[in-house]
Parts: sequence; structure tokens; C-alpha cells
Amino acid sequence: MPATKEEIAAFIAREFPQTKVAVLEAGDRGATVAHEIGAAELRPGNTVSGPVLMATADVALYVAILGEIGIVPLTVTTSLNINFLRKPAASARILGVCKLIKLGRTLAVGEVSLYSEGSSDIVAHAVGTYAIPARGA
Amino acid sequence: MPATKEEIAAFIAREFPQTKVAVLEAGDRGATVAHEIGAAELRPGNTVSGPVLMATADVALYVAILGEIGIVPLTVTTSLNINFLRKPAASARILGVCKLIKLGRTLAVGEVSLYSEGSSDIVAHAVGTYAIPARGA
Amino acid sequence: MPATKEEIAAFIAREFPQTKVAVLEAGDRGATVAHEIGAAELRPGNTVSGPVLMATADVALYVAILGEIGIVPLTVTTSLNINFLRKPAASARILGVCKLIKLGRTLAVGEVSLYSEGSSDIVAHAVGTYAIPARGA
Amino acid sequence: MPATKEEIAAFIAREFPQTKVAVLEAGDRGATVAHEIGAAELRPGNTVSGPVLMATADVALYVAILGEIGIVPLTVTTSLNINFLRKPAASARILGVCKLIKLGRTLAVGEVSLYSEGSSDIVAHAVGTYAIPARGA
Repeated sequence: MPATKEEIAAFIAREFPQTKVAVLEAGDRGATVAHEIGAAELRPGNTVSGPVLMATADVALYVAILGEIGIVPLTVTTSLNINFLRKPAASARILGVCKLIKLGRTLAVGEVSLYSEGSSDIVAHAVGTYAIPARGA
Repeated sequence: MPATKEEIAAFIAREFPQTKVAVLEAGDRGATVAHEIGAAELRPGNTVSGPVLMATADVALYVAILGEIGIVPLTVTTSLNINFLRKPAASARILGVCKLIKLGRTLAVGEVSLYSEGSSDIVAHAVGTYAIPARGA
Repeated sequence: MPATKEEIAAFIAREFPQTKVAVLEAGDRGATVAHEIGAAELRPGNTVSGPVLMATADVALYVAILGEIGIVPLTVTTSLNINFLRKPAASARILGVCKLIKLGRTLAVGEVSLYSEGSSDIVAHAVGTYAIPARGA
Repeated sequence: MPATKEEIAAFIAREFPQTKVAVLEAGDRGATVAHEIGAAELRPGNTVSGPVLMATADVALYVAILGEIGIVPLTVTTSLNINFLRKPAASARILGVCKLIKLGRTLAVGEVSLYSEGSSDIVAHAVGTYAIPARGA
């Protein structure tokens, strides 16, 4: 049973109260999320730190999967591969746009393009795999 | 000119004031770092969130490289691949133990084994690539 | 100076005389290639072996890059990440469809979706990075 | 029930009759294999082609896993990540030295260092994941 964008956002706000990631879209085997950027997200060179981009990719995948299978909290990342392509802007949110490539019963794989909000240049690209726990009938 | 563990720790404290990662060792083409774990680092299932493990791997690589080339702040991650292998403990620091596989003039590659402090089981394993900016003679 | 599909096919036939990969399309920051499948490409389970899929992805990236920068033979793979998603058919060619995500002066990154010819299900997905050698003005 | 080096070599000779990979060692959660290099394995620049290195890594992982779980032919690669670090020699076999990082009931993960035989410099480094099919009691 799929979950709506609002249900996923409420779940994330409850389970990850300190998150700086907002859910913008979910459904159609995809998702868009946005990570706030402040001083804590920057690194030398006046750019966004790598782990912030990784976290955005990871959440985008999670939201895309929950949008298809519903709120299954113990769905966990099993692998993530990320390539950093361009220096992100220091003053814009990071958007993560996920498309699921495979949605199996126990495994989901998706790719995520990351952008500085307001630009169409990809700043990083990730592919991740999630394990979906067994669910009752 | 290599940097000492103390120099790297001081640099990180200054440039990443909110980091929760401590530098335990640096040198010999490797590094060990530790990430504090508190409520903000946990996720459903009472375990450490994936992005915390990714961040620890990323810092371990950065420290290992700075330990060889000195404080070159604009050394940046170009790719990271991580496999999550076991559920980390919720109450122990995450240790990241990096060994550099290649240290070229413009590129460094290293692998990182991640542990829950006090256990010898690998909880995740990462391989990352950093680009080293051109430096003057 | 971009190379045409025909120029790339001729180059590959000359430099890789034993290749079983045909160039179907090149240009627009992308490429499509096809790998013949015979007994040598199969593995237990009556399916295509992993290395055949990897090789197809690698060539698709190479063709897409040469289609943009021209015949620069020493352009070499620096990393490749592949996820195997479904069992390919034993009797169909493997198609590799590449789209470049980044085309810089010294580095190109692309993603490749792999299919059994005649099916729209992705059997594997790869992301690869190539280093482009310095070229004269 | 583990398989010996000889059992694995016989299985590979039977199931992959055209392979150019020899099994040198298996056991202790690891394996060493060697890939013959001839004209078909080279590429422009007089070096070993990327897919040959990928294939060597893939077989090294397979042998290491079979060495632990026995001859389970349908054990298949689910992901592989490889970084190419140095130009291999054109005239030496490629050695793949695998160490398993995790050996679970349904999933195994290992890393592979690749060398030109006779040199201690790593030419490429891979991390791969295999799915192990369910087995009877």
C-alpha cells in the first residue's frame, strides 16, 4: 500500500526530528527532496560538504521506496555509490531527485540526481540499494 | 609535507566546528577517526543512520590524505562507494579505519572499514576517491 | 571535434578486432551499443555472465565519450559501478544505452542502462568515469 | 561444506570452458586467481582492457565464496565497484587477490586487489557483492 507525500513527511518528522530534509514529491516510482543549507553544511571552499549530498541522496531513495511500499521503517540502505560532479552553491538548498530502477519484493535500486536549487546542472549523482524487510500477508 | 594528527585535528576543529568526528590516528598512509553517536545519529531500528557511516568514511579518507600531503583544504571527494554489512550498535562510537590504496599527485584512493567501537565486526566498508588540487613548487 | 558513429565503429573494429560489440548509435551525449551473445557469454543458470554486462557498459561509455570529443584512444576508464537487477535472456543481444552526466575537460561520467534486446526491463545499471588525456590546442 | 581449490578449478573448467582464469588459491575466506593476457586482452596504449580486470575481480570473488560455501553454481554477482589505479603491464598475467569482508547466509561481500604478476603495485581495486541462493538443510 503506497504512502502519500504527506504520510511520509509526517513519518520522517517523527522518526528523524532533527532532519533538515523536506519531502517535496513522492510517487510514480520517484521522489524529490530538499536539504536546507546553513553554516553546518558547508566545508572549506565555500561549498556543501560531501556527506550532506550523500544524506540527501539516501533520503530521496528512502522516500521514493516508501512512496511505493508504504511506511516500512526498517527498510535500510545496503549500498550507495556517489559521484561528485560540480561544486554546489553555498546558498541554495540541495535538491535530490530519485527514480527507482528496480522495485522488487526484498530489494529496491534507484538513482538520484542532485542539484543546487535553481540550477539545472547536476552537482552529484548517486545509485543506491535498499533492503526491504519481509512483510506479512 | 605531511601533517601530524594534532595539526589535522586542529584544522578540522577550526573549519568544521560542528563536527562530531575525532581524529585518533593519522600517518603511514592511513587514519583512524571516531564519530560520536547520540540521538541525532540514530534511525528507526535503534541503529546508526547510513549518512553517519558515510560521513565517518569520508572524514577518515580526508584525514589519511592530509596526513600524507599536509593541510590542503580544497582536497575534495570525487566518489564514494559504501556497502552496509551489519547493524551498528546504537550506543558505541563509530570508528573509521582508512588505508590509502593509491596516493598520486592529483588523485588519492582509499578504503575504509567501519566498526562499532569495542567490536571487531565490520559494520560497513567504503572506497573513496579524492581529487588533490595542483600545488605550487 | 566529435566523431560520427561510423568513425567510432571503424576505430573499434581496428583497435579491438575481437570485440563482439557493435555501435548502434552515438551522439547527443549518448550512445547505444549491442553485445553478441553466444555460448562463451553464458554462465550457469543459462544467463549472460556478469563480465559481459560490464564490458558492454564500458564500451557504451567509451563510444558516448568519443562521440563528443572525437577519437582519443587513450581515454580510459577510472571507475565503474554496476548493479545487476534481473537475469538477462540467454538468447538475445545485450544492449547498452549510455547517457553522459558530465563531460568535463579531463573527466567524463555517464550512466548506462543494460537490456536484453527486445525487452524494456533493465537487466543491469552502471555508472562509470573516464579520464580524458590532455589534448593540444 | 567448503570446496577445495581443485574442486573449484574443475567446476570452472567444466562450466566456463573458454575462461582464461586459473584458480591459484582458495580458502580462509579468500582466493587468488590469474587471468592470462594475450592480444585479445589488450587495448590502445598497450595495456590490459578494463573488462579483463573486471572479469578477474568477479571470478576471484566467486572462487572465494565457493571456497567457503561449496559449489553453489547459481551464486551470482549483484553489484561490483571497481577503481582503476595504474596501467597494468601488457605482458604479465593479472592476479586477483580476494578477501571476503562478509559471508552471510544469503549475501557475501568481498574486496579484490588486482596486480600485474611480478609487481606489488595494485593496478585496480574492486568490491563486489554476491547473492547466495537458498539451500536445503
